[in-house]
Amino acid sequence: MAEYQLYGFGESGNSYKVALMLTLCGCDWELVPVDFFKGETREAAFRASVNPLGEAPVLVHGDVRLRQSGVILDYLAERTGRFGARNEAERREILSWMFFDNHKFTGYYATLRFLRGLQGTENDVTAFLRSRTLSAWHIVEKHLTGQHFMIGDRPTIADLSMCGYVYYTEETGIPPATFPAIRRWADRIAALPGWKPPYDLMPRAMPA
Amino acid sequence: MAEYQLYGFGESGNSYKVALMLTLCGCDWELVPVDFFKGETREAAFRASVNPLGEAPVLVHGDVRLRQSGVILDYLAERTGRFGARNEAERREILSWMFFDNHKFTGYYATLRFLRGLQGTENDVTAFLRSRTLSAWHIVEKHLTGQHFMIGDRPTIADLSMCGYVYYTEETGIPPATFPAIRRWADRIAALPGWKPPYDLMPRAMPA
Repeated sequence: MAEYQLYGFGESGNSYKVALMLTLCGCDWELVPVDFFKGETREAAFRASVNPLGEAPVLVHGDVRLRQSGVILDYLAERTGRFGARNEAERREILSWMFFDNHKFTGYYATLRFLRGLQGTENDVTAFLRSRTLSAWHIVEKHLTGQHFMIGDRPTIADLSMCGYVYYTEETGIPPATFPAIRRWADRIAALPGWKPPYDLMPRAMPA
Repeated sequence: MAEYQLYGFGESGNSYKVALMLTLCGCDWELVPVDFFKGETREAAFRASVNPLGEAPVLVHGDVRLRQSGVILDYLAERTGRFGARNEAERREILSWMFFDNHKFTGYYATLRFLRGLQGTENDVTAFLRSRTLSAWHIVEKHLTGQHFMIGDRPTIADLSMCGYVYYTEETGIPPATFPAIRRWADRIAALPGWKPPYDLMPRAMPA
């Protein structure tokens, strides 16, 4: 058995955040595939034994069981000494961006991409989510104009959190060309040694 | 000048989370009112000098300037020694709930309450937000059935984060009676010495 077990699936950018961190840090990890599209996360067994919130990812490390990608990234940064903060001010800055990511940057975009990109829906709800997503993306675009990563000149777990959904190519109605600083930042992360795209780290759960 | 300056406004439950923490901890603080409904958070001056993300709350403590209620609560717990974690496992559990709060529990509800409760909108978007809110609330309802606070038997910043919007009475189309465990939990927090409801801590910014 590998040192870390990650419950997740290919389409889950939140799972990818963790899979990417484990990979970049050279951790010994294995995927426990979650059959999301058959409703596994909503089943009583999953809620009882894996995550009462019915969400992926979940990381198991010995006796430690963690949910929420932000908490898992923080834990792994501490364990591995990689991509973490160098001082308290930086720790707070990283955490601020991870909250912003969960609330707005990933939050709205992941839901938009699920409804539009995976389910093929286009309606008032996706228009609303796209508008909220664009506001969040414009903030990040501006922030990344003139600096290489979210926290200055080196990658941290704030970047690994925020990049979770940007490598997926399903249609969302948001043209990548609109956000050149975000594209260059995504390329910089993709150039880190060991980087792999989402579906190379976890197979798709959605039936073809 | 007070020790802490809080940029916020009455209708902002995210600001209330911080105002309540400062009040319960007996901190010396003052409100710097943000004229949200006149668009102050979207103005260049606010973004340049207070918060580039155009959000409230922001807490200023000497040279330290913090955004994101979760980060501010974490900072205040450390400074005051109140409502924080007793060990690493508890710290991760608190942080997990605060991420869940920002993403889903407050995340969807605050937007629903803004559109429905403050703007009087009722459409497919509010129906969508209500459905997402209900999923999140059912998880918390179940979690609070049989325990007094989010982390066992004593209040922490996870509770102060999650209760941020539950005392507002604007219409959201979610009947409080549906969630008896959440109501009892809210009453328990309201019984803490020094507790005050949102509009007693910060005046309304919305013109009557």
